[in-house]
Amino acid sequence: MTATRTVELEGHIIDSGMMGRCFGLIMDMDGSFEVEQFDIGRHKHAESYARLAVSADTEHDLQAILHELHQNGATLLDPSDATLEPAPEDRVVPTGFYSTTNHPTFVRVDGEWIEVEAIEMDCAVVVERGDDAGANGPRAYTKVLNAVEAGDMIVTGEAGIRVEPPERPRGDEGGAFGFMQGGVSSERPSESLIAKVADAVEQTKEDGGDVLAVCGPALIHSGAADDLARLVREGYIDGISAGNGFAVHDLERGLYGTSLGMDMETMEHPRKGHKHHIYTISEIIRAGGIEEAVEEGVVTEGIMYECVENDVPYVLAGSIRDDGPLPDTITDAVEAQNAIREQARDADMVLMLATLLHSVAVGNCLPSTTRVVCVDINPSTVTQLLDRGSAQAIGMVSDIGTFVPMLADNLVDD
Amino acid sequence: MTATRTVELEGHIIDSGMMGRCFGLIMDMDGSFEVEQFDIGRHKHAESYARLAVSADTEHDLQAILHELHQNGATLLDPSDATLEPAPEDRVVPTGFYSTTNHPTFVRVDGEWIEVEAIEMDCAVVVERGDDAGANGPRAYTKVLNAVEAGDMIVTGEAGIRVEPPERPRGDEGGAFGFMQGGVSSERPSESLIAKVADAVEQTKEDGGDVLAVCGPALIHSGAADDLARLVREGYIDGISAGNGFAVHDLERGLYGTSLGMDMETMEHPRKGHKHHIYTISEIIRAGGIEEAVEEGVVTEGIMYECVENDVPYVLAGSIRDDGPLPDTITDAVEAQNAIREQARDADMVLMLATLLHSVAVGNCLPSTTRVVCVDINPSTVTQLLDRGSAQAIGMVSDIGTFVPMLADNLVDD
Amino acid sequence: MTATRTVELEGHIIDSGMMGRCFGLIMDMDGSFEVEQFDIGRHKHAESYARLAVSADTEHDLQAILHELHQNGATLLDPSDATLEPAPEDRVVPTGFYSTTNHPTFVRVDGEWIEVEAIEMDCAVVVERGDDAGANGPRAYTKVLNAVEAGDMIVTGEAGIRVEPPERPRGDEGGAFGFMQGGVSSERPSESLIAKVADAVEQTKEDGGDVLAVCGPALIHSGAADDLARLVREGYIDGISAGNGFAVHDLERGLYGTSLGMDMETMEHPRKGHKHHIYTISEIIRAGGIEEAVEEGVVTEGIMYECVENDVPYVLAGSIRDDGPLPDTITDAVEAQNAIREQARDADMVLMLATLLHSVAVGNCLPSTTRVVCVDINPSTVTQLLDRGSAQAIGMVSDIGTFVPMLADNLVDD
Amino acid sequence: MTATRTVELEGHIIDSGMMGRCFGLIMDMDGSFEVEQFDIGRHKHAESYARLAVSADTEHDLQAILHELHQNGATLLDPSDATLEPAPEDRVVPTGFYSTTNHPTFVRVDGEWIEVEAIEMDCAVVVERGDDAGANGPRAYTKVLNAVEAGDMIVTGEAGIRVEPPERPRGDEGGAFGFMQGGVSSERPSESLIAKVADAVEQTKEDGGDVLAVCGPALIHSGAADDLARLVREGYIDGISAGNGFAVHDLERGLYGTSLGMDMETMEHPRKGHKHHIYTISEIIRAGGIEEAVEEGVVTEGIMYECVENDVPYVLAGSIRDDGPLPDTITDAVEAQNAIREQARDADMVLMLATLLHSVAVGNCLPSTTRVVCVDINPSTVTQLLDRGSAQAIGMVSDIGTFVPMLADNLVDD
Repeated sequence: MTATRTVELEGHIIDSGMMGRCFGLIMDMDGSFEVEQFDIGRHKHAESYARLAVSADTEHDLQAILHELHQNGATLLDPSDATLEPAPEDRVVPTGFYSTTNHPTFVRVDGEWIEVEAIEMDCAVVVERGDDAGANGPRAYTKVLNAVEAGDMIVTGEAGIRVEPPERPRGDEGGAFGFMQGGVSSERPSESLIAKVADAVEQTKEDGGDVLAVCGPALIHSGAADDLARLVREGYIDGISAGNGFAVHDLERGLYGTSLGMDMETMEHPRKGHKHHIYTISEIIRAGGIEEAVEEGVVTEGIMYECVENDVPYVLAGSIRDDGPLPDTITDAVEAQNAIREQARDADMVLMLATLLHSVAVGNCLPSTTRVVCVDINPSTVTQLLDRGSAQAIGMVSDIGTFVPMLADNLVDD
Repeated sequence: MTATRTVELEGHIIDSGMMGRCFGLIMDMDGSFEVEQFDIGRHKHAESYARLAVSADTEHDLQAILHELHQNGATLLDPSDATLEPAPEDRVVPTGFYSTTNHPTFVRVDGEWIEVEAIEMDCAVVVERGDDAGANGPRAYTKVLNAVEAGDMIVTGEAGIRVEPPERPRGDEGGAFGFMQGGVSSERPSESLIAKVADAVEQTKEDGGDVLAVCGPALIHSGAADDLARLVREGYIDGISAGNGFAVHDLERGLYGTSLGMDMETMEHPRKGHKHHIYTISEIIRAGGIEEAVEEGVVTEGIMYECVENDVPYVLAGSIRDDGPLPDTITDAVEAQNAIREQARDADMVLMLATLLHSVAVGNCLPSTTRVVCVDINPSTVTQLLDRGSAQAIGMVSDIGTFVPMLADNLVDD
Repeated sequence: MTATRTVELEGHIIDSGMMGRCFGLIMDMDGSFEVEQFDIGRHKHAESYARLAVSADTEHDLQAILHELHQNGATLLDPSDATLEPAPEDRVVPTGFYSTTNHPTFVRVDGEWIEVEAIEMDCAVVVERGDDAGANGPRAYTKVLNAVEAGDMIVTGEAGIRVEPPERPRGDEGGAFGFMQGGVSSERPSESLIAKVADAVEQTKEDGGDVLAVCGPALIHSGAADDLARLVREGYIDGISAGNGFAVHDLERGLYGTSLGMDMETMEHPRKGHKHHIYTISEIIRAGGIEEAVEEGVVTEGIMYECVENDVPYVLAGSIRDDGPLPDTITDAVEAQNAIREQARDADMVLMLATLLHSVAVGNCLPSTTRVVCVDINPSTVTQLLDRGSAQAIGMVSDIGTFVPMLADNLVDD
Repeated sequence: MTATRTVELEGHIIDSGMMGRCFGLIMDMDGSFEVEQFDIGRHKHAESYARLAVSADTEHDLQAILHELHQNGATLLDPSDATLEPAPEDRVVPTGFYSTTNHPTFVRVDGEWIEVEAIEMDCAVVVERGDDAGANGPRAYTKVLNAVEAGDMIVTGEAGIRVEPPERPRGDEGGAFGFMQGGVSSERPSESLIAKVADAVEQTKEDGGDVLAVCGPALIHSGAADDLARLVREGYIDGISAGNGFAVHDLERGLYGTSLGMDMETMEHPRKGHKHHIYTISEIIRAGGIEEAVEEGVVTEGIMYECVENDVPYVLAGSIRDDGPLPDTITDAVEAQNAIREQARDADMVLMLATLLHSVAVGNCLPSTTRVVCVDINPSTVTQLLDRGSAQAIGMVSDIGTFVPMLADNLVDD
């Protein structure tokens, strides 16, 4: 053994599993360690502290271990600065670039730890110093590959990077959000769970937070549009992220009482109902867009109507299966992603309602600290969406056509 | 061509598809036909009539065609009697036995068409004549293989058998049950659909019919037990068909407030909660059974409690994954099937609620004329259950934990 | 009754169900009819003929009935021309525009029935006459809403339109494609079914047809990339339709031996493996695109490599969940749809392999005469994709990671 | 604080998560602790040791904490004996009975820790001493509730019970079984995974172990019967656990070439094919059972045939959806469970192949040390089956109709 460094662990290192993970990965990477100090929080809310001397055969191996420890929340005594290298070309990263997780992340620049702004998975970290960074000293922020410009100073290598994986609150510490660690289950009481989601929405709003609803077209087909419109009108929803189809189905319902040609009351398919979909798009194009259609009095009800009337912003992202699309739909995937990214960053709580595509797109842009509720009839969808390392997330395998009405009843009638 | 016979089709032969099927199968079986008369009902409710001369190369081929035509509702002019052969041994059928469909079926005995009693799929038809049959002349009824006794006179071959596939009502003819032809879909408005199911239950009760609920344990875990108990108490459910687990979870909820150890209000798992399941069974055994436990005041709420208090019969069928089981559980599969069969024959409407095993078992015993509503979160389960040729059946891919409460609200509050 | 017209049905009108549907819809729409002539094909391959006098209370009602009859394949004796109206604005259809099905369709212009080119669902039909149409007389073709230009002469109303719903081949008539009418099932022998799909691919190639593979990223994760690459190399695949992710995973596998960071042989996740995904995109951008990366020797194996080497065209459509994207990816949804449409029109057989999004996009552009094989692990996906009225389509609920290798073994080793 | 006791943790307490769990639960239960000694294994294979002084407000609270620590593998210095109480009646447990986990468990009797025999979830532990226990001193073993007899000495309370949760092997320590900790995934390469399952079967056989196949009827429908028969014939399968339907479908295939009436080669449904199912049962009943039918030459191929010919025992458990049943089918659920229990205890590796019901029944009887491979097309089934705390288990969402042939090719051709 030639190389040794001292590392500190601090916080709820036992029950967050941080200590176990750190010990394990040192061993997995053929290092060894000595516990120099170990103060355990013996009470529920007390924090713990451990100081380890970590050793490896070579300095190179040691750096690799230290990097992984950092990724898991350990702190290095006497750390070095992050390595920065310029991007060689637009949309090309330097070799050895650091690819982000979605956890709060810090990079060490000029001897100071600075937090990476707008943290998001699978991004590069760009550091600005000097004039670029403004009066407040250096800045660090994420850039998706697409946004990288030649010359951007990009964090590479493994030194000078620290990650703080979120600690999950213990039991009743979580308050209104305490239930949001339950993973996915179809074996929990649906009504009780919906009541808890309602409480969490309420609490988020009371805390001044923003609730973003990510919506799939099944929400309309399953008859939940009136209830989502109600939630928008009553101020519980601060943004809608959806696709062209979602908006068209909602608008068709307002214009013709049908969704994809089916009458939402009688569940019958009126003759010519299948044209309503295309007619609806044509009518909105004629008006110039959804807002114009609302102003002209062409559209007088529904979710999109309430968004316009109540100044709730929406992002409609295009996809290759769209009809039309509506003038409001952003057809370029990169532009649409940027619009989604902005929405996602503003959200304190995200409701993912019966859509895999849009939920993945939004989820990709979320830090692990944003609260997520995911509802879908397909358990695989819920599992896939929850599997992103959010600290407070809950999945519910349920029927969106009954979930939204019950949620609205819980919120609006209270 | 040597062999020819005349066949009649009558009723809604066009829109039921009967005519198309009959024409098609004659061609598929290498026969030919001449339409001798064809009177088409030109109005919605008018019936049609067609008379065909059907020909085939050999008498044997012709018989095969005629049999298939019979299976599809055609009538033979100048038919022959059904062939009867004695069962050679207990639980052994004679070669060439006729295996039933679940449609209304008639066999011709001594020149008379008599309806097969207790029609059910995949059975043998036993004919009783003379003294056995009583004063009313010959009888025909189904027997499952298991019940066949040596010497039973069993219908074999293809002659003298006629089936009446149910006609699906056209559009608004169906009244409260008109919506029950929609197949399976998760793209229909859930609340509207539940309201229609409630209307159908109401109508069935008003018509003096019986509603059988087939229930899986998920109903309890998902928090719907109170609402089903309410429906039993209010007289909307006339029988429960379930397994040992369903009853134990319901009783555990009454005794300890938990289901499989989870508190149904807080959704927490109290320490030792996992024992409640076994304790519950042990307590019911100690009392001597569910009814005794209710009488002793050990059980004071829940679905099983309401069944006992309101004289609603239940069948609990055992399975190889049961704990216990309860003294009320029928552990022998054949005995349990017989008990289920009796329940199924009495039912005018069956609600299949979140269970594949028990729904298949009940569905196996139903004639195609019984109304069926099937609700499950798994679309494959719903598809499989609907795929049995019921004339009035609807499947709903939904969350049982929201479906039952909404159904109860529709029925009880009205 | 005031209005009456004569209508003819011709072809396999019995077993295709056309006659039943036509009779039924006349009754449903409160019309009546008299059968004036009825010649039934008595043999398997013989066609039938029926002539009906159809009546309704008003000319308007009659027109509606005739339109629906036309949609179902009936022919009007003494038909009128289709009504044409100019599109009022770009991307706006005239009121009452005719929205297409995906079946072969004809419109009557100047007394002649002309076939609508490039038939596809939910489009408008544009008619060109005079100089626009060239020397060959008038032309009719579909336009998606998006492509409609002010002044386009668009078919409206219900007159002068005829649809020929495809007839499903009877039993053994279908030859190598006869099995492709089986709907969706997970209860069929997988190996036998894959052998039949292989035969159908072989037959399509022998007939000089084109096979289009629509591919999801699961194909790569599940280890089937080598086998699909083999099929491309051996000439069984004439086009690939996929997304950015599919190509990136395939290229990552070639560059690093991993897919989304997992080693495809050992199934382990090498440290830093999660970066491979972004690195891969960065490398392809640096080279200038996939073709350039192949030429530079950066990419030396995999599906995309074989496409480049064997001149098999691919369309990579962007989506909002993409990383990167690659320079080859078409990020605009409308442009991407147009590229997909062109591919789809050239295809004689389409393999939809483990992707819902791309399969829907391709399926939207297909006429009902294109053969479709759909394979997915999720039964809901298969059901949804098969539910589009294709005449020869089969769905298989299977594991793409075993399906593609077995298909390749069947085709390449033969 | 009044009550304190000393507790030891030993083994891979860090990376098994034992230490984290123990620390966490002390805090959750409002106790506190002091680490008196802490020796950490610094190398991959080194074990660790920790000694804690655990305190609580009352002796009662402390006992509860100690019990939970024991359940998680901690050892009490100076432990007391387990409390024993007689069962008050047959099938009734004393209040406070200890309900087992599926992990290796020890109870302290007369100052000695003895291992509980035949450990299995949700059982009571019966202790025999004196004459009952034989010459070797006291014995402890599990009894399901059903088997409890009045007077049985049953472990109650929380003292004197110790559980050893299995440690998961680190990375490459696992050898041929190392991959069996991967949870459920449909995002792994199918062929590689099947090759690894084959290696694990091979290794199990080389180690002299027994492989039990738990089989659902879909295995037959999906065309995998020949390959499973091959595995039985070649000695890779030491027992079959299935239901009546599985055996009937296999026998039908042997007798008529069909499964539920479908020809397994052509995938067509021969006329009268639907009777084959009942005929098959009738034929086996006539012969007297499967073995007799094989001996008479009635059955000459298939899985059941190979079982008889190769003396591979099978358990066929009845269920309420069975036709027949066969004479070999155990119709009583309790008897069937006992037969399954015996099979399960002998197994070293269990393949759960496309059946939920039978897999749950077998899984209920397995200790956490038995290796489990679970394959199903439905991800929810795989998740549910893997979620039972097995130390070495892997789930695969795949098509059983391709999995079994590929497994057989891997094993038999090697």
